[in-house]
Amino acid sequence: MDLLSIKEPTFLRECSNEDLEDLAEDIRNFLIENLSVTGGHLGPNLGVVELTIVLHQLFDSPKDKFLWDVGHQAYVHKILTGRADQFDTLRQYKGLCGFPKSSESKHDVWEAGHSSTSLSAAMGMALARDLKGTDETVIPVIGDGALTGGMALEALNHIGHEQTDVVVILNDNEMSIAPNVGALHSMLGRMRTAGKYNKAKEELEMLIKKIPAFGGRLAATAERVKDSLKYLLVSGMFFEEMGFTYLGPVDGHDLDDLKKNITYARKTKGPVLVHVITKKGKGYAPAENDAKGTWHGLGPYKIESGEVVKKPGPPSYSGVFTDTLKRIAKDDERIVAITAAMPGGTGLDKFAKEFPGRMFDVGIAEQHATTMAAGLATQGMKPVFAVYSTFLQRAYDQLVHDVCRQNLNVFFAIDRAGLVGADGETHQGVFDISYLRHLPNMKILSPKDENEMQHMIYTATQYDGGPIAVRYPRGGGFGVHMDKELKVLPIGKWENLKEGTDLSILAFGTMIPVAMEASEILTKLGINVEVVNARSIKPLDAEKLKELADNNRPILTLEETALLGGFGSAVLEHYHENHYHTMVVERMGIPDRYIEHGSVPELLEEIGLTASNVAATVQQILPRKRQRA
Amino acid sequence: MDLLSIKEPTFLRECSNEDLEDLAEDIRNFLIENLSVTGGHLGPNLGVVELTIVLHQLFDSPKDKFLWDVGHQAYVHKILTGRADQFDTLRQYKGLCGFPKSSESKHDVWEAGHSSTSLSAAMGMALARDLKGTDETVIPVIGDGALTGGMALEALNHIGHEQTDVVVILNDNEMSIAPNVGALHSMLGRMRTAGKYNKAKEELEMLIKKIPAFGGRLAATAERVKDSLKYLLVSGMFFEEMGFTYLGPVDGHDLDDLKKNITYARKTKGPVLVHVITKKGKGYAPAENDAKGTWHGLGPYKIESGEVVKKPGPPSYSGVFTDTLKRIAKDDERIVAITAAMPGGTGLDKFAKEFPGRMFDVGIAEQHATTMAAGLATQGMKPVFAVYSTFLQRAYDQLVHDVCRQNLNVFFAIDRAGLVGADGETHQGVFDISYLRHLPNMKILSPKDENEMQHMIYTATQYDGGPIAVRYPRGGGFGVHMDKELKVLPIGKWENLKEGTDLSILAFGTMIPVAMEASEILTKLGINVEVVNARSIKPLDAEKLKELADNNRPILTLEETALLGGFGSAVLEHYHENHYHTMVVERMGIPDRYIEHGSVPELLEEIGLTASNVAATVQQILPRKRQRA
Repeated sequence: MDLLSIKEPTFLRECSNEDLEDLAEDIRNFLIENLSVTGGHLGPNLGVVELTIVLHQLFDSPKDKFLWDVGHQAYVHKILTGRADQFDTLRQYKGLCGFPKSSESKHDVWEAGHSSTSLSAAMGMALARDLKGTDETVIPVIGDGALTGGMALEALNHIGHEQTDVVVILNDNEMSIAPNVGALHSMLGRMRTAGKYNKAKEELEMLIKKIPAFGGRLAATAERVKDSLKYLLVSGMFFEEMGFTYLGPVDGHDLDDLKKNITYARKTKGPVLVHVITKKGKGYAPAENDAKGTWHGLGPYKIESGEVVKKPGPPSYSGVFTDTLKRIAKDDERIVAITAAMPGGTGLDKFAKEFPGRMFDVGIAEQHATTMAAGLATQGMKPVFAVYSTFLQRAYDQLVHDVCRQNLNVFFAIDRAGLVGADGETHQGVFDISYLRHLPNMKILSPKDENEMQHMIYTATQYDGGPIAVRYPRGGGFGVHMDKELKVLPIGKWENLKEGTDLSILAFGTMIPVAMEASEILTKLGINVEVVNARSIKPLDAEKLKELADNNRPILTLEETALLGGFGSAVLEHYHENHYHTMVVERMGIPDRYIEHGSVPELLEEIGLTASNVAATVQQILPRKRQRA
Repeated sequence: MDLLSIKEPTFLRECSNEDLEDLAEDIRNFLIENLSVTGGHLGPNLGVVELTIVLHQLFDSPKDKFLWDVGHQAYVHKILTGRADQFDTLRQYKGLCGFPKSSESKHDVWEAGHSSTSLSAAMGMALARDLKGTDETVIPVIGDGALTGGMALEALNHIGHEQTDVVVILNDNEMSIAPNVGALHSMLGRMRTAGKYNKAKEELEMLIKKIPAFGGRLAATAERVKDSLKYLLVSGMFFEEMGFTYLGPVDGHDLDDLKKNITYARKTKGPVLVHVITKKGKGYAPAENDAKGTWHGLGPYKIESGEVVKKPGPPSYSGVFTDTLKRIAKDDERIVAITAAMPGGTGLDKFAKEFPGRMFDVGIAEQHATTMAAGLATQGMKPVFAVYSTFLQRAYDQLVHDVCRQNLNVFFAIDRAGLVGADGETHQGVFDISYLRHLPNMKILSPKDENEMQHMIYTATQYDGGPIAVRYPRGGGFGVHMDKELKVLPIGKWENLKEGTDLSILAFGTMIPVAMEASEILTKLGINVEVVNARSIKPLDAEKLKELADNNRPILTLEETALLGGFGSAVLEHYHENHYHTMVVERMGIPDRYIEHGSVPELLEEIGLTASNVAATVQQILPRKRQRA
């Protein structure tokens, strides 16, 4: 059918299974074609085509509420709720969001980008329903990976206790982003295959077989026991223990099986968990056979071959991180690496290949990862937790309470710091300086290029004074010369990149090229600005700041992070603490709002973090200084 | 025996059970007597006397590592490791810490104050051991309440998966601080009583009985099946599913039962969980019969009667919070209250009494509580999450990602904001402004007294523009007049408390009396300072700030919170953003380090947040201003 003609999912109610199967095929082809151009989360969405169709057929959205955990598997939902025509703009500036977005559609009742939030939100919606006395169904759809997040387990515990009516769809595709980790995952595996308990089951069945026929009554008892045992042994014990009615496993690509179980779930009182087995990438061979997780979320690709279109370029920061860490770990046995379900994204998969016993993937569990690192550090190890800036937000209390308070030698390799682009507002790594900088004992560094990056990784591994963070952006470096020897950079020392006396631009990381370009524009206008690589964000370079103050030189701070509580604020705090109350300090950075998706250059343009705008700001500052002088 | 003579726990190895029983009694008497004077966590420690003795007898601390989850039950451990002589200084300034503290003893290998961290830390220590090839045992001791924290569940999942050797002691006292919440708790109850599955078990036993004697072979099979079924049904299924060997339930006050099981646990390969049933308050009737949780942690009491010594005084902020919320909730059905296992501490127990269907205790699960609140808010409810400042740290990502990003009407009633005193560095609520202020859409208020408090609570319930936080201190108000009518205070408007033109002190909350007293000292010296109640921390009062700038009046900001990223920084940011680059702004607050335990006045004295010091600082600022002018 013409997917572009869909306005509302109500048409599904009239559809036969044959119609739905055709529809599923159309949706798959549509996704494979569109995403080959725009990129996006292909694998997860191919896995939930039938599931999403059946959910929209059986329930009445938006009265009934679908909560897509993590949110990257909501493309089929977007198509069925009238947004197929926007897929050519997927994840692009001002285009269709890659996650549910309430401003796009009334059918997007919950927004997400991080995992494990859907059960808690569903509980809130269900409690509101019960208090208001309405009768909608609340249906969180959560993956097996997201279920390992502590917050989802907290919610399971509470929902089971309150016995609230919630229909949880467990979308079990046997891997989250990376193959799944944890005992829960093994348990799901056992449920799928009913392997572990077969022995006890066999023993019981043997026993029952040996019982002579005592007549109907005993046989019935035997059957009942057999049923109850089988039930205990094979299916859902864990969830039943948590207070849920467990249904499954259900074949997530079999319309009848899905309909039967989900219909039953809807009628059941109390919380229900429907265990749906799906195949990530279903219907597209390259994505189905994807062991490495490439097809989880990716850029454009060639449909026929499944070849991912890669732009050649300098090594990525993640790549430099791993390569450097591997190099150091060879001679330093204290180093162990930790990831929370992102071995590929962080580059630690390559570390694990070389040091299989020294890399730990803890699952989607940033809190545990952080405090486990603290535990390792108490024993003289040097743990390195490689984690995206926005995901480390999950471990803020563990940073406060476990790592920084005990001043332990944990190294946080903070990837995807700054704007990340297409993933949008849930993933923009713009808060880490604001949430790390006020923690006692914390040190924060940020490199200007991949060469400085390798030295910073080395510096952080050699630092034994407590916690240290190196924050670096998504994507590639600049192809600069890489020094052969690794060296320790002085913490709390900045680097002069360009001389100039009219004003000093203090910048770091991704903002260095912007500052340099601005300074060139200004030179042409006869204005000579200094450019400083303020690579040590905590501590600041007190000596340099004093020199600037003694010269009464105006300052412009430039950061691809939140202005509130950010680097520029640190500079202001420093001057006022040291009684320099007349310094001209202008701050440019991310304003006090969430930044939506788009390419990084587009977003920087929107925010005004461009060379021309920096140059214009400098011109505005200078007359003020002159006026005063 | 003379507890003061104990230096190391090694003496325990020679002790008979009789010796140990005497020791247990001595320890109980010691605790009951000492804590009647100093206050402290009596109930939890009386519950673990035998357990701690047996652990120190069987293991070799500090080579073997005890991790006391939450940490408030480590008093017996402190006595057995040579610190009995310091108990008269318990929780006092420069005295014995109420939690494990590595600077006190080599036996305190892990510090905690927040719950649910011990399993993750233990995992880190165990991994370090395995990497280094040493052979110590790692023994986290975790309560049933702490086990509901998501982080502990993340750790269970990971430990079970890795099959690391860890001996987990589950100290199950049937309540955390408040009676426990959640499906996990019910499950533990079933394990204790083996109730739920009795039916299936009975059916099987009936079946087995009816089997004629087929000879040894079948009988053996039947027995085996019976055993395996019983095992599945009664004990530890949940933990076995998670990959742990489950031992228990063990009577936590029976030395032999404890020794037998813990010895077996030590020998077992892979992770083991020993389920120990203890009685909180064991051996002291008032604490044993404590339904309300009074004896969890408390001030001085009379030993004979168990009467808690209460200082009469004005109502506490927590009390005003509940009373006001109850009053509003009568007419406003949107209001629902949430606590994470602190119904008593936050005062919400009283709310629940009046509105039993509108208060939710989610267990120790701040992440879930926050996002559940977000879910409630999407449905037009007005959820109020009452939570201590340091515990909300656990939900930082949920604040960023769920509440603020979706701009939902969640009201955070942040109790224990500012210094809390005796609980010390893990509990000082000094970071909340720094971690909340940079979140887009967030509003933050703080009251100067209990009358303003009630209006702020009302204001927050009436505010429909997104998330709002009211932060208020531990303890009582001032006995001020309470207005009869509740009124909405303007958000972003400050209040002039005292006129003055030489300098303006901007303060809020607990710092208002300090500012007022300082202004009186200064008046006597001929210096007239203005005192402003800066009750709206975000947004600031832009109009007032402009007025101050237009008058070029020096400013002193005063806050009982971290200076980095705090209120004073917000003032600096504001001025520089608005191009006032010559304002004299001095900031007083909590410096960049953790603040240990002590009474609040002692701590304020140490930090310098006193009236005399404020007055001295003002005198230092003024000449600077005059010099420049």
